[in-house]
Amino acid sequence: MATYSPLTEKLIQALRVLPGVGLKSAQRMALHLLERDREGALRLADQLRSTLSGVSHCQQCRLLCEADICHICSDELRNQRQICVVETPANLSAIESTGIYEGVYFVLMGHLSPIDGIGPEEIGLHLLFEQIEQRQVEELILATSPTVEGEATAHYIRQKLDAKGIKITRLAHGIPMGAELDQVDGHTLHHALQSRKVV
Amino acid sequence: MATYSPLTEKLIQALRVLPGVGLKSAQRMALHLLERDREGALRLADQLRSTLSGVSHCQQCRLLCEADICHICSDELRNQRQICVVETPANLSAIESTGIYEGVYFVLMGHLSPIDGIGPEEIGLHLLFEQIEQRQVEELILATSPTVEGEATAHYIRQKLDAKGIKITRLAHGIPMGAELDQVDGHTLHHALQSRKVV
Ligand SMILES: [Zn+2]
Ligand SMILES: [Zn+2]
Repeated sequence: MATYSPLTEKLIQALRVLPGVGLKSAQRMALHLLERDREGALRLADQLRSTLSGVSHCQQCRLLCEADICHICSDELRNQRQICVVETPANLSAIESTGIYEGVYFVLMGHLSPIDGIGPEEIGLHLLFEQIEQRQVEELILATSPTVEGEATAHYIRQKLDAKGIKITRLAHGIPMGAELDQVDGHTLHHALQSRKVV
Repeated sequence: MATYSPLTEKLIQALRVLPGVGLKSAQRMALHLLERDREGALRLADQLRSTLSGVSHCQQCRLLCEADICHICSDELRNQRQICVVETPANLSAIESTGIYEGVYFVLMGHLSPIDGIGPEEIGLHLLFEQIEQRQVEELILATSPTVEGEATAHYIRQKLDAKGIKITRLAHGIPMGAELDQVDGHTLHHALQSRKVV
């Protein structure tokens, strides 16, 4: 016999869209919501709808935001000719909190990962290259994480821009290999940013 | 600065109703849905709504189902005077698949856990005791899992029914201590059910 009723089974399947959630976790989640937190489950349903309809990408830097252009890109005090490429919003925040960067960003929302079907288009590189053509960009800081995928992504971008004559830099060594950028302490990150090098 | 836009932040918080999902997991889930699977996220929102509105408890055995009385309780070939108490639908399925049990069930949907605020009412024991008063129940099989919480729950039920003169049994030894009932092989469970003992 089936262990769960048809509608419960459908919820279990629907929960598996969440990353890292397998069958057993989805079953535990469905039962928990149905048994112990129906209110929270309805709030989640509502919030999924309103966040999905309200949030899109900043048309310039790809940061998830409610406006067409995010608060960083629309800040007139920032240098639009200096772009720092990061993998995630968390990494952007980490750099912002050093307080020394005055350019703008480009957020990849991931990194190249051919196995998962994530190519240049999926991380928005065509938009980055368009911007480099259109604006007079002076420096591109490749601040992807020092992981295999982050390095490969930086390498790909550098190769594509080889003939353009733009100054391309990477954060200085000092960041531990294999670490996530947003877990690095502020002092190290501050130092790494200041001693960035042309590559 | 805030790392995520206000609506993204709200989704991250809403996702934390899911058991086992902390801040980091919720952030990863929100970004994944917004970046890579908006369709799946909308399906999840819809399914949460329809499952929550369509699924309630069987009024007799508490199994989650779409009808007032589930397909097991409404099966006329089953012995309504024999009730097997289990913790979860998965455990019910495990017993069903032995093919030798012809009574009905009572599904606790958990076990006593005072630390988590789960007392007798939360696992529906008042409904079980009502049914034992109303129907002429001949045997109550306490098939809770052989874990600390499962044993404590069985102990509580047995104590409450001490003076009622009902035959109360537990599954025979043979189930490994500390194991989840639905992970025990069919042969062992078959044997344990057949050699159940009055307690
Ligand atoms: Zn922006
Ligand atoms: Zn039932």
